[in-house]
Amino acid sequence: MTEQHLTVRWTGGIDGHLVLLDQNRLPGETAFLECRTVEDVWNAIKRLSVRGAPAIGVAAAYGVVVGVKEGRGVDEVCDYLATSRPTAVNLFWALERMRSVASRVVPDPGGLNERTQSRDGGPPGSLVDVLLNEARAIHDEDRQQCAAMALHGADLLADLPAGAGILTHCNTGALATGGDGTALAVIFELARRGKRLHVWVDETRPLLQGSRLTMWELQQRDVDAALICDSAAAQVMREGRVQAVITGADRIAANGDTANKIGTFSVATLARVFGIPFYVAAPTTTFDLSLTSGNDIPIEQRAAEEITNGFGAQTAPNNAAVYNPAFDVTPAELIAVIITDRGLVQPVSEANIRTMIGT
Amino acid sequence: MTEQHLTVRWTGGIDGHLVLLDQNRLPGETAFLECRTVEDVWNAIKRLSVRGAPAIGVAAAYGVVVGVKEGRGVDEVCDYLATSRPTAVNLFWALERMRSVASRVVPDPGGLNERTQSRDGGPPGSLVDVLLNEARAIHDEDRQQCAAMALHGADLLADLPAGAGILTHCNTGALATGGDGTALAVIFELARRGKRLHVWVDETRPLLQGSRLTMWELQQRDVDAALICDSAAAQVMREGRVQAVITGADRIAANGDTANKIGTFSVATLARVFGIPFYVAAPTTTFDLSLTSGNDIPIEQRAAEEITNGFGAQTAPNNAAVYNPAFDVTPAELIAVIITDRGLVQPVSEANIRTMIGT
Repeated sequence: MTEQHLTVRWTGGIDGHLVLLDQNRLPGETAFLECRTVEDVWNAIKRLSVRGAPAIGVAAAYGVVVGVKEGRGVDEVCDYLATSRPTAVNLFWALERMRSVASRVVPDPGGLNERTQSRDGGPPGSLVDVLLNEARAIHDEDRQQCAAMALHGADLLADLPAGAGILTHCNTGALATGGDGTALAVIFELARRGKRLHVWVDETRPLLQGSRLTMWELQQRDVDAALICDSAAAQVMREGRVQAVITGADRIAANGDTANKIGTFSVATLARVFGIPFYVAAPTTTFDLSLTSGNDIPIEQRAAEEITNGFGAQTAPNNAAVYNPAFDVTPAELIAVIITDRGLVQPVSEANIRTMIGT
Repeated sequence: MTEQHLTVRWTGGIDGHLVLLDQNRLPGETAFLECRTVEDVWNAIKRLSVRGAPAIGVAAAYGVVVGVKEGRGVDEVCDYLATSRPTAVNLFWALERMRSVASRVVPDPGGLNERTQSRDGGPPGSLVDVLLNEARAIHDEDRQQCAAMALHGADLLADLPAGAGILTHCNTGALATGGDGTALAVIFELARRGKRLHVWVDETRPLLQGSRLTMWELQQRDVDAALICDSAAAQVMREGRVQAVITGADRIAANGDTANKIGTFSVATLARVFGIPFYVAAPTTTFDLSLTSGNDIPIEQRAAEEITNGFGAQTAPNNAAVYNPAFDVTPAELIAVIITDRGLVQPVSEANIRTMIGT
């Protein structure tokens, strides 16, 4: 079993449960969280055991199944899971889909048990059946979207010279999605096509998704990579070692402003200074066309301890004041192209986004 | 005893030894290294138990005394200590001064012991006496230079509005010098004058001198501060919360190009993008007028483990390739003013530097 099958999976059938790879324990340990209650799922999302916008969406969809199997109402479960993290829109998108499919199911009026039938005349099934099928569909679609992004992105970057440097921030691979990844899937596809690349991996403080997760994925796929401190990206760019920057996204507003892991805006700004193209890879599910611009994207503030007590050691004085936004917003004007599963948004403009994604 | 007396000190007289505050154990623990051999001193510098360009210079000067007390030759000791770290020029400058004073001492031709007399007719004394006096003089001068920089810098920044944000990178306070600091001393002086400030402290990966040391010093002096991940600096700047950036330096070339802790170039570049003035505070001993530009400054490459195994936890896969330059070079054109003990270099040009510092 390769890592892309481990991130999020439903084990068993209708009597099964959700199993998540506990990403907080990588790369040292490959351990799993067995989520049998909706609180398990909420905690796993909140604590970043599962993270990456698409993976959060898939996990939340399965989380609704877990919650309904506990005998709770769909709306109650969705409302609760929606409070786990505020920025990645895939979470809300997936919950909305689960709510929507549930609303199309009505209890079988003559039934003695939970069996239901579809309002629109589809095949009847238990609510749990229907929800599990929908979660699996969301998972499958995410997998397909990853594959499509990889192809579009690799076509876009096909002309990079052999040995080109690509810098990335945070983790956007199989660990961040239900499939092969967003930005990292593009890199994987380029490597699969035989392109020789050197990936510069920002360690991505405070939670080190770059060093813990991206380095691990690149090593598993045998892609040449080097780890750097986030603050060294400018120096590596100045040394002429970076020909492209590519990251994922947690939410993209209608105008193309893109929320992503804290530090992405820094990297995008530096890339502009050095004339290096900055690309975002994100599935259609990461767009939030209800928001005019990035100013409207809610930015999660996380605990000070992520910075002051990372990985077991206290590295700041007691009671140090901390500012720890988990995300920043990169303005559309800094983004050369948004690579989506449906194709390339280029240049990044509201008109082009609406044409590609819908209204 | 306040922290500025703890960083580097000689305990006892001619029979004494060097005591260093072990900065690797801060902020959790206030522990001291008793350096009775020159290897102790070399290791303390190499491992950053003592760090900060001026403090390294002072520690190395005392280190020469330690080595000569062991019965080694001055040149041998200086050559050895010079291999501890390559970038901070204060190290080489201090060793040169120790060599120079030793060369002016000749053995007493009629003496039966180690007593010597000065070639230039000064009072005789043992070589160790003379070296210890010189190390103390270097220490005293550094203290005075810190005080002078603080005054010049505080005059320069006197017009900052109340509540202004100042961003700093790495540690440049009493822990980095024989006195009150370089950049941080300017902030301390502004605070002493009653200016209300908010200091944004980059944590400064990989060794976290910002979170471990700068936050500790600011807390001790009751200066309002918040800790951020290095990659969040761009976001804080965009939010309009930074009115000035000020850092120290490890070596300044004749044209003003400035080597300093990795990440400084990133912060300087971002400050330029946001129209925020970027200042460097450094004593005359940090200038190296023998170098035409920053291209000639040797940049120390440090161990991968600083990034992959920081603070007790392994946070990257085994055998991860790492690029870990300890410093970068900020080009003079990004520096608004260099604050020195002799006054302000403004604009930063070779002519102005040579006028201020000498030839």
